Amino acid sequence: MTKTAGCCQGCLHYVFDYETPKTLVIPSIRVGFVFRFTQFLVVLYVVGYVCVVQKAYQETDSVLSTVTTKVKGFAFTNTSDADPRFWDVADYVVPPQVSNIRFVFTANTHKLNLPNPSTSCVDDCDCIEGYSDPRGNGILTGLCENYSTTVKTCEVISWCPLEIDTKLPEHALLAAAENFTVLIKNSITYPKFNVHRRNILPHINSSYLKRCEFNRTTDPDCPIFRLKHIVSEAGEEFQDMAVKGGILGIIIDWSCDLDWWARKCNPQYSFRRLDNKNPANNVAPGFNFRFAKYYKTPDGEETRTLIKAYGIRFDVVVHGTAGKFGIVPTVVNLGAALTFLSLVPVVADWVMLTCMGKRDLYKKHKITHLNEVADTETVSDKLNVFTRDYQGLIFSIFPFSSRLFFCQTADKIHSF
Amino acid sequence: MTKTAGCCQGCLHYVFDYETPKTLVIPSIRVGFVFRFTQFLVVLYVVGYVCVVQKAYQETDSVLSTVTTKVKGFAFTNTSDADPRFWDVADYVVPPQVSNIRFVFTANTHKLNLPNPSTSCVDDCDCIEGYSDPRGNGILTGLCENYSTTVKTCEVISWCPLEIDTKLPEHALLAAAENFTVLIKNSITYPKFNVHRRNILPHINSSYLKRCEFNRTTDPDCPIFRLKHIVSEAGEEFQDMAVKGGILGIIIDWSCDLDWWARKCNPQYSFRRLDNKNPANNVAPGFNFRFAKYYKTPDGEETRTLIKAYGIRFDVVVHGTAGKFGIVPTVVNLGAALTFLSLVPVVADWVMLTCMGKRDLYKKHKITHLNEVADTETVSDKLNVFTRDYQGLIFSIFPFSSRLFFCQTADKIHSF
Amino acid sequence: MTKTAGCCQGCLHYVFDYETPKTLVIPSIRVGFVFRFTQFLVVLYVVGYVCVVQKAYQETDSVLSTVTTKVKGFAFTNTSDADPRFWDVADYVVPPQVSNIRFVFTANTHKLNLPNPSTSCVDDCDCIEGYSDPRGNGILTGLCENYSTTVKTCEVISWCPLEIDTKLPEHALLAAAENFTVLIKNSITYPKFNVHRRNILPHINSSYLKRCEFNRTTDPDCPIFRLKHIVSEAGEEFQDMAVKGGILGIIIDWSCDLDWWARKCNPQYSFRRLDNKNPANNVAPGFNFRFAKYYKTPDGEETRTLIKAYGIRFDVVVHGTAGKFGIVPTVVNLGAALTFLSLVPVVADWVMLTCMGKRDLYKKHKITHLNEVADTETVSDKLNVFTRDYQGLIFSIFPFSSRLFFCQTADKIHSF
Repeated sequence: MTKTAGCCQGCLHYVFDYETPKTLVIPSIRVGFVFRFTQFLVVLYVVGYVCVVQKAYQETDSVLSTVTTKVKGFAFTNTSDADPRFWDVADYVVPPQVSNIRFVFTANTHKLNLPNPSTSCVDDCDCIEGYSDPRGNGILTGLCENYSTTVKTCEVISWCPLEIDTKLPEHALLAAAENFTVLIKNSITYPKFNVHRRNILPHINSSYLKRCEFNRTTDPDCPIFRLKHIVSEAGEEFQDMAVKGGILGIIIDWSCDLDWWARKCNPQYSFRRLDNKNPANNVAPGFNFRFAKYYKTPDGEETRTLIKAYGIRFDVVVHGTAGKFGIVPTVVNLGAALTFLSLVPVVADWVMLTCMGKRDLYKKHKITHLNEVADTETVSDKLNVFTRDYQGLIFSIFPFSSRLFFCQTADKIHSF
Repeated sequence: MTKTAGCCQGCLHYVFDYETPKTLVIPSIRVGFVFRFTQFLVVLYVVGYVCVVQKAYQETDSVLSTVTTKVKGFAFTNTSDADPRFWDVADYVVPPQVSNIRFVFTANTHKLNLPNPSTSCVDDCDCIEGYSDPRGNGILTGLCENYSTTVKTCEVISWCPLEIDTKLPEHALLAAAENFTVLIKNSITYPKFNVHRRNILPHINSSYLKRCEFNRTTDPDCPIFRLKHIVSEAGEEFQDMAVKGGILGIIIDWSCDLDWWARKCNPQYSFRRLDNKNPANNVAPGFNFRFAKYYKTPDGEETRTLIKAYGIRFDVVVHGTAGKFGIVPTVVNLGAALTFLSLVPVVADWVMLTCMGKRDLYKKHKITHLNEVADTETVSDKLNVFTRDYQGLIFSIFPFSSRLFFCQTADKIHSF
Repeated sequence: MTKTAGCCQGCLHYVFDYETPKTLVIPSIRVGFVFRFTQFLVVLYVVGYVCVVQKAYQETDSVLSTVTTKVKGFAFTNTSDADPRFWDVADYVVPPQVSNIRFVFTANTHKLNLPNPSTSCVDDCDCIEGYSDPRGNGILTGLCENYSTTVKTCEVISWCPLEIDTKLPEHALLAAAENFTVLIKNSITYPKFNVHRRNILPHINSSYLKRCEFNRTTDPDCPIFRLKHIVSEAGEEFQDMAVKGGILGIIIDWSCDLDWWARKCNPQYSFRRLDNKNPANNVAPGFNFRFAKYYKTPDGEETRTLIKAYGIRFDVVVHGTAGKFGIVPTVVNLGAALTFLSLVPVVADWVMLTCMGKRDLYKKHKITHLNEVADTETVSDKLNVFTRDYQGLIFSIFPFSSRLFFCQTADKIHSF
């Protein structure tokens, strides 16, 4: 034949001849049962666990969120260390419009220096001018003044009167705050799936929104929360927490299943105290900060009212993951499952060639042993049977167990 | 031979003998074509979809971002309910430096109580002293006063004059705001890949930044936005939105492909209204908040100006995912694809043993049937042919279709 | 036999007969070695890289975080353009309680209009009344006034005196700020694993917290940072940065390994300047913003002090990923690895049938060639040997290399 013809024929054969393994059918119920049962386990795992429980066929996206809050409530305070005062939202929420809430109370101020170790002195030499301890009260002037008949302290430059930081409040100024309500408006987006939701659900109408209040059992969808309710759901006592302050998380979970057969995507509210209140490690507890209101006296001098605000900060934490059927994760997980199905014959063969009574018969027909010298095929001996064929795969599962097999076979040798 | 020698030889055989399946070559163009075509489909999926479309060979990281904004613009207001006033950025942006912008207008206040159902009364008994409705106007004093000649209302403690919340503004105070501009500086980081970018791209110089203004077609990279432009791109009318207020998202998408052959990592700007304006569910629309400025009168009494600010809040939402070639995802996806390639022979064999004319010939040479009783190999009969070999894999793909095959084979029996 | 009996028997055979491939054992050390060595490489990759390095057996979750900061420190300023003043936290931190810090300084103001190109004019016609350039100084009144003997400028409505924006500060007002300290309290949550941590570690007690200061070597766990230290760790000079302002990231990395044998989940602090300071692209550098304090004069007129604040903004950026053993990722990665193990025989067979001396012998015994015409099995010829069996898998790995094999075989043909 010509080269071309030969070439073409070669190509045809090369491309389109089909090679398939020769197989042997073994009509043994027990082997078959082992085979089917192992298959069943794998399929059970894939269908039951991967698909149903883990939803591994979904590709996921994480949430983008925007939050606005609006507090409502009034309080009237009449304490010894401050004038009678009426408080509304503009007074006790600082800053006005970020999604955090705080209840503030004016720190009571005193008109004298503090005797604390760092500033007590004998004479001026003890007071380095200009030095300031960040944890102290101000900048030293370098003078050592009589603080009382007994104690002399370094004079400091500071706002006057000096604030007393050591005296903690023993009761919350705005006890009425526990009845305040907060409306939380939360809009979320899953950009990958182009899904937009808000926590004011479609079935909520204005009239309901005017009177409702969140309750896990009766009103789980109402976005209006009574502060006392929030704190108590977090396992805290409002009045205790309000005194020293703290951070309370309003956690909104937007986990969504966007597949057309599921279609559930509603917010789940939960509440947790975010600052540590662990008695074993109760370091730097509570929450407070200072801010000032500035005034000008008629003669133009600037004055300020320093406010040390103890209060509860409410952090709205929005998280969640949306899942939707995706080709790639499905194929990947299916592929992994199929791979394990391809391990099933390994188990079945191992049983067949080691535990069955007719194993020698099976070996004889299944495995041919090439005798290189005489160019003849001989029935495989006991030694070389089950290990070789599946060593590859077994090896990959228990990479370090080969020694085990090894000795096993070594023992077998003795019985020659 | 000695035990040791035997053992060593056994080990050598055990470890280094190589077992390979016996195969049968079938020179049928049609079977070969089915085999190659199925292969082609799988490869097409892997190369085309997984690699090119889904980029499944990449490992991903999500963005860390920091944003600063700077607004510029002036307005002059001269309305009936407020003194003529000049506004600059320090006046209308609250708070000064967070990445949100707001336009505020002073709420007009009136000097009388409100007659609303909750506070209308007949005599003092209707007014519980100290009670306060969070949605009301203040704390009841317990007195029932004449509000007008016809209506009596409970007296409340509150800031005076009382704010009228029911009367919504009919026009935006700062109509000029639509021509304000905002400069957005955004720096992002992909910590896993140690990549840092900013939205002021390298090719932008100071002179360009001084005169440019964002425009999707002409200036897509300019980080300076005219507010009217933003709102209109979001499909809203600025003046309408400014009256009742709202939240507008400036969404910056930093999706990056960091592979050396792609190297594209630029921000994409888009604009969307984040608060719900759905007419079907128009509950709690718009956006507004209250804040106060505090003054001291010469005689030391504290006064305040309550400002109820309706305005547009601009939320800068930064999101994005960076992808870069990674070994693990590549191997996982490649592995899954290979697994499906290992399914191709199943299809080919099924075709060969059921649809081909010479199927009986193929069966005879491919499959040997072990006859346990007579210890002889017989050619497999029609019944047991195609099901067994591939049941395993087919089973795993359609776990519940075995009954189907079952009846099929049962029918076959009748035709014996 | 009856139909039923036949059917049942058929079913039994159908379900429980077990089919296994016939195999040939080749006692060749070299082939075996290639086989085992390739296996070893794959196992090495799986165990070493996937499991140990990449921890691909873990499922991951990303962090939820809440942060509070508290600054401490004092400063006293006595400059030409402002009255002597004492500063404490309430004065220089704006806003009071968000997790950003800023150092502000009062902009010095002048009592005259600015001559800049946009507002210089010849007569009133050049000044369009009501027009305002967002980048200008105010709204034009339409009058052209003498700014100096030589220059005439358009009169603008604006707050008086006019701020001079062009003159940058040449030194930081609060030089003492570099010794301020900031306490960062950070609580994190991994919702999927229900793990809560805070950056004040259990072994930290109150006394240590009172005196400690972060130092990478001596006090790596102390959550109190000296500002100068932070800035220098970011590779910046505090005084330089304080003048023009900037944004400095305090990056807390909470990467956790939650498996019971690892159990490490501590914060790692790092510091980086977030605003661009790249000399090649130094556009819009630094960070500053304006805000105002409002006062009422005794006669009720509203005045303000405009403050243009240059300063360092500290952004606390919390990120991290927690990993914990998960079934699905383990199975997926194991499956992928097993698939590659199933490729090992391909390599071994290829070697055996092409590189070995006895390849013809091996082929003869391994591969049977079906002769459809004569219904006989003949030993496969050289041409069709090695390609077919593994074409499937090789094809999938190098989808475009088939031509290579092709020519190779074509050449072989010539040698017939």
